[in-house]
Amino acid sequence: MHIRLSFITFSLILFLVVDMVKIPKSHPRYWSLLYREKIIEGMEKGITAKAGLIAHGRGEAFDYLIGEKTIPPAETAMRAAIAKLLLAKHPVISVNGNVAALVPKETVELAKVLNAKLEINLFYRTEERVKKIAEVLYENGADEVLGINPTKRIPGLESERGKVDENGIWKADVILVPLEDGDRTEALCRMGKFVITVDLNPLSRSARMADITIVDNIVRAYPRMIELAKEMKSLPKEDLEKIVATYDNSKVLSEVLIHIRDRLTKLAEGGIWKKEKLDI
Amino acid sequence: MHIRLSFITFSLILFLVVDMVKIPKSHPRYWSLLYREKIIEGMEKGITAKAGLIAHGRGEAFDYLIGEKTIPPAETAMRAAIAKLLLAKHPVISVNGNVAALVPKETVELAKVLNAKLEINLFYRTEERVKKIAEVLYENGADEVLGINPTKRIPGLESERGKVDENGIWKADVILVPLEDGDRTEALCRMGKFVITVDLNPLSRSARMADITIVDNIVRAYPRMIELAKEMKSLPKEDLEKIVATYDNSKVLSEVLIHIRDRLTKLAEGGIWKKEKLDI
Repeated sequence: MHIRLSFITFSLILFLVVDMVKIPKSHPRYWSLLYREKIIEGMEKGITAKAGLIAHGRGEAFDYLIGEKTIPPAETAMRAAIAKLLLAKHPVISVNGNVAALVPKETVELAKVLNAKLEINLFYRTEERVKKIAEVLYENGADEVLGINPTKRIPGLESERGKVDENGIWKADVILVPLEDGDRTEALCRMGKFVITVDLNPLSRSARMADITIVDNIVRAYPRMIELAKEMKSLPKEDLEKIVATYDNSKVLSEVLIHIRDRLTKLAEGGIWKKEKLDI
Repeated sequence: MHIRLSFITFSLILFLVVDMVKIPKSHPRYWSLLYREKIIEGMEKGITAKAGLIAHGRGEAFDYLIGEKTIPPAETAMRAAIAKLLLAKHPVISVNGNVAALVPKETVELAKVLNAKLEINLFYRTEERVKKIAEVLYENGADEVLGINPTKRIPGLESERGKVDENGIWKADVILVPLEDGDRTEALCRMGKFVITVDLNPLSRSARMADITIVDNIVRAYPRMIELAKEMKSLPKEDLEKIVATYDNSKVLSEVLIHIRDRLTKLAEGGIWKKEKLDI
């Protein structure tokens, strides 16, 4: 009986039915488990693509490696990103299925505080998914959602994947494209857009192609970016320009790799095998 | 028309219908894309669990870090694993949903060359999934598949997750449990089994609990293990025993971490951003 109960508790807590029970926030991997569940729910609702689940898994692994917290190079990148977005004439925030499943409310809030437009931009675009994501954004307070009837195309990408809104990404000078595919990030860079991405994998093509790469979990990054936007909104233009001008994305990405490297070294030196158990 | 055709070609080639067309093998991420598709197909067929998709993504992340190739410590671990399996009285190879989706043919071939039994062993066990995985194994040439009506239980695991076959894992002296959950690996070790795992995450509990940990992608490891088994089958027993006796799993795992660490250092120093593109 004891074993049976502990099994039930364990399964409930650890794996699938996060919504039905309260995971104690003290659980060492509370957030990771909660957002894993949100992605699975997103797929069940038709918001997130199947490949989005795999992408989420990749993100989880990199998040383990950085330590599941916002590290200094990510904070530096976020400050530069917010400065650039505040300086932009036509800032646009792109939304895909994973973003809509994980941070719908924060996406809408970030767009509002930055006066940025929101555009749905899907790798596996179907009208059904676009519609569902738009609903989620409107439910979370969006006033306008672009990308529903896109009429323009990003050069170098084929039709479905390249579709963009004339009043959104097409016209944008600065674009925030979180959790984005490398091909599209590259195509946007080629169009001369200033591209900001959020990507937990510092080795991904998106991470390497973007002008500013925030290597952080979007569930931590967006709330922090909202705070930063509120704080930095009142800064003089010159201060914002200085933040952008002194930002070096290569340096920031190298710092992330060094952070991961040092963490692995520490774990490796700790004699963790068999004797000590980490919460991994 | 041209654009439409190239879109169709591109989508077909790159993402979803890999089985129907040939992805050019020259594509830098050919294997990763092919097996990602196989996992999605596995889920659609009811072979792979949803959580299996996320687990696959975690594996992809660690495969990025090791460089998407078999590294020397993995080769060392595979040699020791094959030696131990050839020496075993009752070797068993465990099969779960991800394994069945990724390497069904190789699993059957490896079992045959090692005279090992095959047992279906699922974390999210349902009779439906067991049946479908058994079908896949039989289609790929298996003569016998255990785990369909398991009557024994691994002590310390609750009923569904602990079910094992009396003639398989229950009786086994050496078990190959690839892509396995940490709890089960630990429970098998406690039963006194010699446990070999294949896991891309060198920090996972499975990796740390197992007697031999092959940190490699199973799609590369299984074909190589089949080759090794054929080569090593003719070795004298003493030679095999020597390979096992001199094997040190902690050392091998440390070497994996050092490999990743050195790779990250090189990348961090190399200025890979934007200018140079790596095939990552």
